[in-house]
Amino acid sequence: MRLYTYYRSSAAYRVRIALNLKGLSYEAVAVHLRKNEQNAAAYRAINPQGLIPTLTADGHAIGQSLAIIEYLDETHPEPPLLPPEPHARARVRQIAYVIACDIHPLNNLRMLRHLKDRLGLDDDALTVWQHHWMVEGFAAIETLLADSPDTGRFCHGDTPGLADICLVPQIYNARRTGVDLAPYPTMTRIEAACQERPAFAAAHPTRQPDAE
Amino acid sequence: MRLYTYYRSSAAYRVRIALNLKGLSYEAVAVHLRKNEQNAAAYRAINPQGLIPTLTADGHAIGQSLAIIEYLDETHPEPPLLPPEPHARARVRQIAYVIACDIHPLNNLRMLRHLKDRLGLDDDALTVWQHHWMVEGFAAIETLLADSPDTGRFCHGDTPGLADICLVPQIYNARRTGVDLAPYPTMTRIEAACQERPAFAAAHPTRQPDAE
Repeated sequence: MRLYTYYRSSAAYRVRIALNLKGLSYEAVAVHLRKNEQNAAAYRAINPQGLIPTLTADGHAIGQSLAIIEYLDETHPEPPLLPPEPHARARVRQIAYVIACDIHPLNNLRMLRHLKDRLGLDDDALTVWQHHWMVEGFAAIETLLADSPDTGRFCHGDTPGLADICLVPQIYNARRTGVDLAPYPTMTRIEAACQERPAFAAAHPTRQPDAE
Repeated sequence: MRLYTYYRSSAAYRVRIALNLKGLSYEAVAVHLRKNEQNAAAYRAINPQGLIPTLTADGHAIGQSLAIIEYLDETHPEPPLLPPEPHARARVRQIAYVIACDIHPLNNLRMLRHLKDRLGLDDDALTVWQHHWMVEGFAAIETLLADSPDTGRFCHGDTPGLADICLVPQIYNARRTGVDLAPYPTMTRIEAACQERPAFAAAHPTRQPDAE
């Protein structure tokens, strides 16, 4: 398998964690987002959105990090990234989608460039923007986690899964941009538990070959 | 089952289609987004994001439309909304997530209000904004559909599924805001095939009890 990745892309970071949790080796191909390598015709040919990540496996190219992770979970079931029971699976996916749909695409590099280039936002305004969507989403996630008996050492029970895979890169982004994480003690407690696991630690942006 | 819905929410529209395809009856509870009923404490108690839709079933409340649809597919397997083979499932989820992650959350009511209230965008600027993200995503989806032998009468083969469920409400939004759909003949051909199906037709915003 080959993963087209960028060290600081949180969508790629998710897939790196999933691959590590599954114990799968892969060839990492760095695509430098700030140098716009994602818009090269050769990359667009495998990912028409020009977004990171893409996984190629068995002659297929899969874009969208959560499509990749569900694929990995279906083709390599152990250890599972989703619990077996449908309500529990829905709970885990709901938390994952709060991040993957309602936080991250509003704050990624593509969006920040658009806000700067088209709407003229300066760096301070971009930070306000990013914090706004993180705080909105984090408040909901903290409630979903803190109010549920299903929350364990990780977002769901005592083994890490899809929700944790989305949570850790989003908290990394939050720290980078200076979000106050004090209102989210359950989230940060779970993040600390994740960081103790080699699968999460090895996927960290600073540990990637293309880190700057 | 009870679905908290709003006639013009495209995320709720997706779930209505899925419920209809499965032949499941449900109680529709209208939550009026423009009157901010989604922010009432009673609704926030079942959906801490204050977003539509929520499905309640067997004492559980599920937020996030795609988490609901995967749940429905797991608990009511016939007819399936995802194909059986993992690469095919990944393809369908990829198309669905292009819409659910990279178009819709950038253009929903929550975002448009933010752009208007915080950044002072006027109606023309809001339309430019919406079109931009739709055109970006539609170009990718058209390529994914037109270039693949897996595309049939619907996004994947000859039965409607998760990708079609996301596509139809997004094209409804595109028409409402005046996007030129001529560059996307595969998408509009599939949308027309969907509209012939009673499950899609009955889920249309204008056919809902809370339609204005």
